[in-house]
Amino acid sequence: MSTGRLEAFSDAVIAILITVMVLELKIPHGATLQALRPLLPIGLTYVLSFVYLGIYWNNHHHMFQVTEHVNGAILWANLHLLFWLSLVPVATGWMGDNGFGRLPTLAYGLVLLLSAIAYFVLQTAIIADQGTESKLRAAVGGDWKGKASPVLYLAAVGLAYVDRWVSLALYVAVALLWMVPDRRLERALASSPEA
Amino acid sequence: MSTGRLEAFSDAVIAILITVMVLELKIPHGATLQALRPLLPIGLTYVLSFVYLGIYWNNHHHMFQVTEHVNGAILWANLHLLFWLSLVPVATGWMGDNGFGRLPTLAYGLVLLLSAIAYFVLQTAIIADQGTESKLRAAVGGDWKGKASPVLYLAAVGLAYVDRWVSLALYVAVALLWMVPDRRLERALASSPEA
Amino acid sequence: MSTGRLEAFSDAVIAILITVMVLELKIPHGATLQALRPLLPIGLTYVLSFVYLGIYWNNHHHMFQVTEHVNGAILWANLHLLFWLSLVPVATGWMGDNGFGRLPTLAYGLVLLLSAIAYFVLQTAIIADQGTESKLRAAVGGDWKGKASPVLYLAAVGLAYVDRWVSLALYVAVALLWMVPDRRLERALASSPEA
Amino acid sequence: MSTGRLEAFSDAVIAILITVMVLELKIPHGATLQALRPLLPIGLTYVLSFVYLGIYWNNHHHMFQVTEHVNGAILWANLHLLFWLSLVPVATGWMGDNGFGRLPTLAYGLVLLLSAIAYFVLQTAIIADQGTESKLRAAVGGDWKGKASPVLYLAAVGLAYVDRWVSLALYVAVALLWMVPDRRLERALASSPEA
Repeated sequence: MSTGRLEAFSDAVIAILITVMVLELKIPHGATLQALRPLLPIGLTYVLSFVYLGIYWNNHHHMFQVTEHVNGAILWANLHLLFWLSLVPVATGWMGDNGFGRLPTLAYGLVLLLSAIAYFVLQTAIIADQGTESKLRAAVGGDWKGKASPVLYLAAVGLAYVDRWVSLALYVAVALLWMVPDRRLERALASSPEA
Repeated sequence: MSTGRLEAFSDAVIAILITVMVLELKIPHGATLQALRPLLPIGLTYVLSFVYLGIYWNNHHHMFQVTEHVNGAILWANLHLLFWLSLVPVATGWMGDNGFGRLPTLAYGLVLLLSAIAYFVLQTAIIADQGTESKLRAAVGGDWKGKASPVLYLAAVGLAYVDRWVSLALYVAVALLWMVPDRRLERALASSPEA
Repeated sequence: MSTGRLEAFSDAVIAILITVMVLELKIPHGATLQALRPLLPIGLTYVLSFVYLGIYWNNHHHMFQVTEHVNGAILWANLHLLFWLSLVPVATGWMGDNGFGRLPTLAYGLVLLLSAIAYFVLQTAIIADQGTESKLRAAVGGDWKGKASPVLYLAAVGLAYVDRWVSLALYVAVALLWMVPDRRLERALASSPEA
Repeated sequence: MSTGRLEAFSDAVIAILITVMVLELKIPHGATLQALRPLLPIGLTYVLSFVYLGIYWNNHHHMFQVTEHVNGAILWANLHLLFWLSLVPVATGWMGDNGFGRLPTLAYGLVLLLSAIAYFVLQTAIIADQGTESKLRAAVGGDWKGKASPVLYLAAVGLAYVDRWVSLALYVAVALLWMVPDRRLERALASSPEA
């Protein structure tokens, strides 16, 4: 099976998730700056989650540039990733609506952690399918970002009851880390003639 | 007519349905575990329906791997399937919001049953179009899952007023049955050179 | 410019419109048959509008099977069609929520009429672009359905204040008319070697 | 990396944004013309924003007709554009719900301005990637519309507290300006053999 439909379906789901969050930005009642103030926390979390979903879409895109075939296991690993990503809008809304309370801040990190694990499972399923000559394994060889992220999410989850602002700072830090484009994969693509 | 647009349209509809259900996961009021409790039944039904829509997307994907052409009858059979699938979010919400009441549990099974019948009608329309050399007929030859599912849904619908937990167990069982990837179709694809 | 992106964008918009209507099917409060009763009128209008959007998607699909290129005028004519179609969910909700009141029934017909005109404008823009050898013009040659529909919508709009059930019967009749697949275009496609 | 997935993802996001605005058109309570009146301002802003999102989709489409490859910077520049466009529905709703108050009218212009800047950044990233032989640079050579629009948005933002109807007139004027198809790009495409 080729990757076309898996990519199209994932694009659609991520596109919807990114825009479903806009629906949480309730239209303010009143035409004043004060009316905008309640939107501030949810607006900031919207930016953060928009960036996270953008990162997942980008990495997903890069990953499937070096993936030619899918099998049943890859289809389900991909749906599993989309499931955890689908909880990002609710987690975002909960954290933003409750002024970054401890439990919502912890829950947000948990959703990020489980999404990261699901991404890793998907990557593993593709590498297993590609066998010994796996292009994806070569490309993500020393993937320190992919290894550092779950550790940082776990730290953020653990610290939510100590100081939730540290947790939040970690979420922002990991997002910034990923916004730097993945040079390794791009280099791998540039040097492979068929990409 | 090629299958490209039918696949793209179905992908978009199923992607939206899967994410529309997230909107039912209302953001909890309050930052406590207690505030999360009302989300539990709807959350569990969300997982179940996510899996069901994932199964339909997977099977649809497999089916159109061995389908090269569509005609008017196939277009309408596909829309008919999408119609019943579009009722999954409402049925899910009704069952989850009412603590798995008898009638909502019955209604959920009815939507699954009608979706399964619509899938069968679509399959039949494709086989009819492909004629005597139908690749799809060969692939689904001894399709015991496709035959068992409607029977199990029907049993679940019938048992909803006897014991709705049995009905629910049947819905979970059929979902697990389908999560095992369809080896037959994958084998058929692997052995056919043009797929 | 090729037609790929116009088709993908239209698919996405129509897929969203078809599923946005599901959001109007509010989850009933209570687990009884009585709780379902308020859903009946909106449910019936949902079926009707689902069929109408399905018809537009089908005809759009057929039309672009015999269209190879798009220009700026076609892009805008297509957006114009999508604009009127985007009002179908609101018109549907208004008619269903108000027990098929006269004005909502008239408004529903108006949206159908303007969509039909927009479709005709799009068809004309494509034929103009294709020039004297227009495959689309040949295919829709004696397009009696396309000509009858606006007349019937206009009649339904005019009759809404006389007897809205006649208007409604006309909406159903036109929908049934279109559900019969467009044999002419399919024949034209079958006989042209490159389609 | 080819442009296929970036285009598909952008199509999906813009398609959802255009239809999310329809959800703001709340179904009127009551079957009279009076019940429709509250919809008028939001309806008019819906038309305006529909046209703006249509313009962005059209221009995006034209731009990627002369773009063959994407890199990490282009992916992020595109997500950045989608971010500002994602605020169009909220800005639209705020302006329409508050009878074109000064601050909402200013905010609407700000979102348009930031979207225009994001579009320009994306265009610059593509031109930088294409290098000295950039087809896109050649095509947008004397792009007076792209240069005039931000100036006019800025003027509209500045005038919102002087006379918001002038601001609104400017928004409508820029929209009309862009609805005239981009002849330069179409000519560039027509004369290049591979497009």
